[in-house]
Amino acid sequence: MRTVYHERLTDLADQLARLCGLTAAAMECATRALLQADAAAAQQVISDHDHMAALRKHAEESAFSLLALQQPVAGELRSIVGSIQVVADLDRMDALAVHVAKIVRRRQPDHVLPTEVEHHFAEMGRAAVELAHCAQEVVMTRNTDMAAHIREQDDEIDELHRQLLTTLMDRDWKHGVSSAVDIALLGRFYERFADHAVEIGRRVVFEATGALLPEQEIGTY
Amino acid sequence: MRTVYHERLTDLADQLARLCGLTAAAMECATRALLQADAAAAQQVISDHDHMAALRKHAEESAFSLLALQQPVAGELRSIVGSIQVVADLDRMDALAVHVAKIVRRRQPDHVLPTEVEHHFAEMGRAAVELAHCAQEVVMTRNTDMAAHIREQDDEIDELHRQLLTTLMDRDWKHGVSSAVDIALLGRFYERFADHAVEIGRRVVFEATGALLPEQEIGTY
Repeated sequence: MRTVYHERLTDLADQLARLCGLTAAAMECATRALLQADAAAAQQVISDHDHMAALRKHAEESAFSLLALQQPVAGELRSIVGSIQVVADLDRMDALAVHVAKIVRRRQPDHVLPTEVEHHFAEMGRAAVELAHCAQEVVMTRNTDMAAHIREQDDEIDELHRQLLTTLMDRDWKHGVSSAVDIALLGRFYERFADHAVEIGRRVVFEATGALLPEQEIGTY
Repeated sequence: MRTVYHERLTDLADQLARLCGLTAAAMECATRALLQADAAAAQQVISDHDHMAALRKHAEESAFSLLALQQPVAGELRSIVGSIQVVADLDRMDALAVHVAKIVRRRQPDHVLPTEVEHHFAEMGRAAVELAHCAQEVVMTRNTDMAAHIREQDDEIDELHRQLLTTLMDRDWKHGVSSAVDIALLGRFYERFADHAVEIGRRVVFEATGALLPEQEIGTY
């Protein structure tokens, strides 16, 4: 009985890890779409959403079924409820990748990004995808050192986001209001994507140690 | 034993309802700060954050304790796990009110909003606060009709948000890029606040009927 139970716990962790990987891939694809004005890549992210929603639903049901049938206690209980919250984070992360893709699709065949902010998004995209892969590793290995590392990487995105807003608000910005609005929102989407990856790391540390890391600070934006 | 259990379930619902009310009040205060460039109101929202975080933590612990000690089944299990997810929604809603307040504080003593978009934010603020009060009512009464009503009101905010973006992107916008960036992000904060209130309604319907309403669509932004 316990063996089946532990197999199902492992299966749940595997599902979450797979979803982290797919969510990283969605943001990688959305970033490529953004940097290269690649409408096919944007459409791919948007089309994949339903399939990923079904996988998330399945993971959530697995967690509920473990709670209902096995009546876990203490640490395991927190771990399984934590899994349901991780699914919610992954849902938001995927929605944010879709937001990026939809901006690309709406502006096609034009490039959304003026050359001077391309490197910001290349860097934010790289860091965001890396964070999602770190979350995947933490979910699989419960490595609490890695969870702390996630947090450090998140600081890099926050710094890039600040620089981006400074660039937009500079009097020398020559690309108009409409472009600035798109870029401000895009910056926000990457920053929130990263925050959710940090949150996944935070939950795993919570489950592994019973203690919460300090709450994420609420940034200026 | 069951009586104590049901008292604790009722207590949990009361805690959530109170938090919904406080979260509505936070957004009401943030909106007043925004419309009147009221720095004291902005500071109030920011200062209240820690106290509200402590109340949320307490509600979450009440839910975990019910799960661990009472081993609820089926509907009650979903309801209690749903409570933990409601706490997470309320956490984001409060963070969004704080975001609004921080923009006001950063721009003081200037007004953030040009006159021509003030009514957008007055309306979005009113609708957002009303949605949070609806969520409070749903949490208390489990009235599934009200949950559907929340959704309709959310459409109003989405429409106001679309109009706002159209206004910003209009060639006649005369208030510069920096102002447009602030306003675009503010619009996003109100829209997300509303989405979380809708999500609370969705969860309660899920708990009451065992069926999920259709997922919220991912909008253009």
